[in-house]
Amino acid sequence: MSRDRSEDDRSVLGGISRRGLIGSAGVGVVAAGAGVLAGRVTAHAASAQPETVPFRGAHQAGITTAVQDRLHFAAFDVHTDSRAELVDLLRTWTLMAERMTTGGEAVADGAVGAGAYNPPTDTGEALDLSPSRLTLTIGFGPSLFTTADGRDRFGIAARRPAALADLPKFTGDALDPARGGGDIAIQACADDPQVAVHAVRNLARVGFGAVSVRWSQLGFGRTSSTSTSQVTPRNLLGFKDGTRNIKAEDHAAVEKFVWADPADGQAWMGGGSYLVTRRIRMLVEPWDRTSLHEQQRVIGRAKGSGAPLGGADEFDDLDLQSAGPSGPLVDRDAHVRLASREELGGIQILRRGYNFTDGSDGFGHLDAGLFFIAYCRDPRAQFVPMQDALARNDALNEYIKHVGSAVFACPPGLGADDYWGSGLFAE
Amino acid sequence: MSRDRSEDDRSVLGGISRRGLIGSAGVGVVAAGAGVLAGRVTAHAASAQPETVPFRGAHQAGITTAVQDRLHFAAFDVHTDSRAELVDLLRTWTLMAERMTTGGEAVADGAVGAGAYNPPTDTGEALDLSPSRLTLTIGFGPSLFTTADGRDRFGIAARRPAALADLPKFTGDALDPARGGGDIAIQACADDPQVAVHAVRNLARVGFGAVSVRWSQLGFGRTSSTSTSQVTPRNLLGFKDGTRNIKAEDHAAVEKFVWADPADGQAWMGGGSYLVTRRIRMLVEPWDRTSLHEQQRVIGRAKGSGAPLGGADEFDDLDLQSAGPSGPLVDRDAHVRLASREELGGIQILRRGYNFTDGSDGFGHLDAGLFFIAYCRDPRAQFVPMQDALARNDALNEYIKHVGSAVFACPPGLGADDYWGSGLFAE
Repeated sequence: MSRDRSEDDRSVLGGISRRGLIGSAGVGVVAAGAGVLAGRVTAHAASAQPETVPFRGAHQAGITTAVQDRLHFAAFDVHTDSRAELVDLLRTWTLMAERMTTGGEAVADGAVGAGAYNPPTDTGEALDLSPSRLTLTIGFGPSLFTTADGRDRFGIAARRPAALADLPKFTGDALDPARGGGDIAIQACADDPQVAVHAVRNLARVGFGAVSVRWSQLGFGRTSSTSTSQVTPRNLLGFKDGTRNIKAEDHAAVEKFVWADPADGQAWMGGGSYLVTRRIRMLVEPWDRTSLHEQQRVIGRAKGSGAPLGGADEFDDLDLQSAGPSGPLVDRDAHVRLASREELGGIQILRRGYNFTDGSDGFGHLDAGLFFIAYCRDPRAQFVPMQDALARNDALNEYIKHVGSAVFACPPGLGADDYWGSGLFAE
Repeated sequence: MSRDRSEDDRSVLGGISRRGLIGSAGVGVVAAGAGVLAGRVTAHAASAQPETVPFRGAHQAGITTAVQDRLHFAAFDVHTDSRAELVDLLRTWTLMAERMTTGGEAVADGAVGAGAYNPPTDTGEALDLSPSRLTLTIGFGPSLFTTADGRDRFGIAARRPAALADLPKFTGDALDPARGGGDIAIQACADDPQVAVHAVRNLARVGFGAVSVRWSQLGFGRTSSTSTSQVTPRNLLGFKDGTRNIKAEDHAAVEKFVWADPADGQAWMGGGSYLVTRRIRMLVEPWDRTSLHEQQRVIGRAKGSGAPLGGADEFDDLDLQSAGPSGPLVDRDAHVRLASREELGGIQILRRGYNFTDGSDGFGHLDAGLFFIAYCRDPRAQFVPMQDALARNDALNEYIKHVGSAVFACPPGLGADDYWGSGLFAE
């Protein structure tokens, strides 16, 4: 069940353009472009990456895949009561998603070939664009299994994993229901935002009547690395965060903390993972008026190098024991301490967060922050205790506000004949 | 006054990273990266572009500059009543903007070198990022010159250009005042969105107390080309639009339609331009349910090639005279006809629009569309009659809604000793 990225993420592409214009002449690996300038690597450039990420495999793509630069995340409400209609949609979505991740249209020749007097079956805005490492990852929310009043909507209530529990209310939560929850989630990650937006839009389009978009979130820049080949980007607080995030190359950690085990209770989720999203508004204006010393105390890292306080290099060990000039070197309430495996009984999560800026809040401030995405084997044992510790004591809480929250069960990867949810809906 | 791009946009960079890590070893031109794959050019890749666009010159950068991939646009309200304070801020902004466009921090060594017990003077999130062709373009709104009740706020009412007139209300306008207007605009364009967001944020930060963000807009992908070296990208209707947009290489058109002439009335605006923004919501769901034939009739172009109806190639002449199978080949209400110079007495504008997706509208639809940006020598003679014709008759109106609007006077470029507005505020 372990995932070897060098094998799973190998270049498959070939020169498939969405309209087949290039043919096999286009086979190749893209240079990391905008980020690499005569040897300078920027935070937004991975090392050369294959242009296409395989859609099928032991695990869904988009979890341990080296984090793409851009995100479009959408949560859907399901309106149909028909299990058959829902399964049909999931089958259709699977075919469309697979096509789009290879750089194809949602439906072959869909933008212009569906007949002049029919609506196009692809919306067309990605016609000229490359695959851009698009991954599409699906998750199922608690409300798909059981409604608030306990109804078994689609005959799958008995298959709801215990790990797919509603998240508790955490201290300080300021959640907007319109920015959270949802029956189904689609995470679209790509190096070109238009490719991600196109994918979500085409899935939404074909689902019209059966599903609708409950909320969606664009992330303009990744804040996490899931591969040792990627540099750690900065969040909108200006800090490198998530340096100690699980990397795909650490197979033991991935096995232990990311992939659900069939023995955890629901066989269909074996090799899957649980996805937690939190829209975290950053109050960047008060943060920006805080001293460097206070910022570094709050985070527990040096702003420039990203090194833990007392260290010199970003990847130096976190020293939680030593004393500093006044109190512990790393503050008792520092973000990095409270989120550390050392203080959490060894817990880790896999993070795939993105920076967002959604205009202004109407009070002269940018509506900006972090769209946090975590993948866990069991949120009850990982995300919940971590967030509980952070929500109670994190010094950072003065500068952030959790305004959206959701949790989803992401099934395992797809074999040749599978569709999204084929395990869950198997008779 | 004519602008030779090959001269103005020459590579100056050198290997300046924001933290000076690389020094002169980094001199070079970036490969167009993510967009170019073994000879395939995507809509989001220009040909190889220098990494730095010069900040000073005869005209402001960011107008005829080859359109960068990403946008962060912000409109500010001015709160101070002090002319001296406003001028001080504009001087400070100018220095910061110039530094940031070369890849520097807002203030030299600002993120970590301002003293531990002071707030950092750069917010830090672009520390590791390249200049990314960042341009920062300033404009002054009508309300900066005269308040709604006619007050001369800063002693510049007599310098308000006649061309900086409030826009009339157009048929169908559904404007949200919270998404329009503003005393000062900053247009940040860059190939990396985090670089654009960082620039706007740092200008907003240093302006705290004197100005605040009234509204802002992220654009995730360009929809226009301002250079013959760029391919025409697609909007979220899936069409190539703006094929006939003014290109920087057409010096005669740029002179005639983009740069204000000092003889137009206000000497300080000579070499400047007038900026019109329109946030155009696209009702993508009904559009997506419309037949290809209807979509092409509405736009007046073929969806696949972008060719005008009756033509074969995107750049073929627009044939407004021929008859089609039923009525004119290009419909009387087709977008491309109504926006054409042929139907508008020769009028042209320079477009720099961006696609946007700002989550959902709360009714199951994506809040997506086009953030339209036009530069004109005189909006009264160009944008207004064009928009009037479109607002009355454009077949596209069934699928779009104008929800935000603003107009600004953008001064000319800066000489060595100038600051943003030095002509306007000269004693």
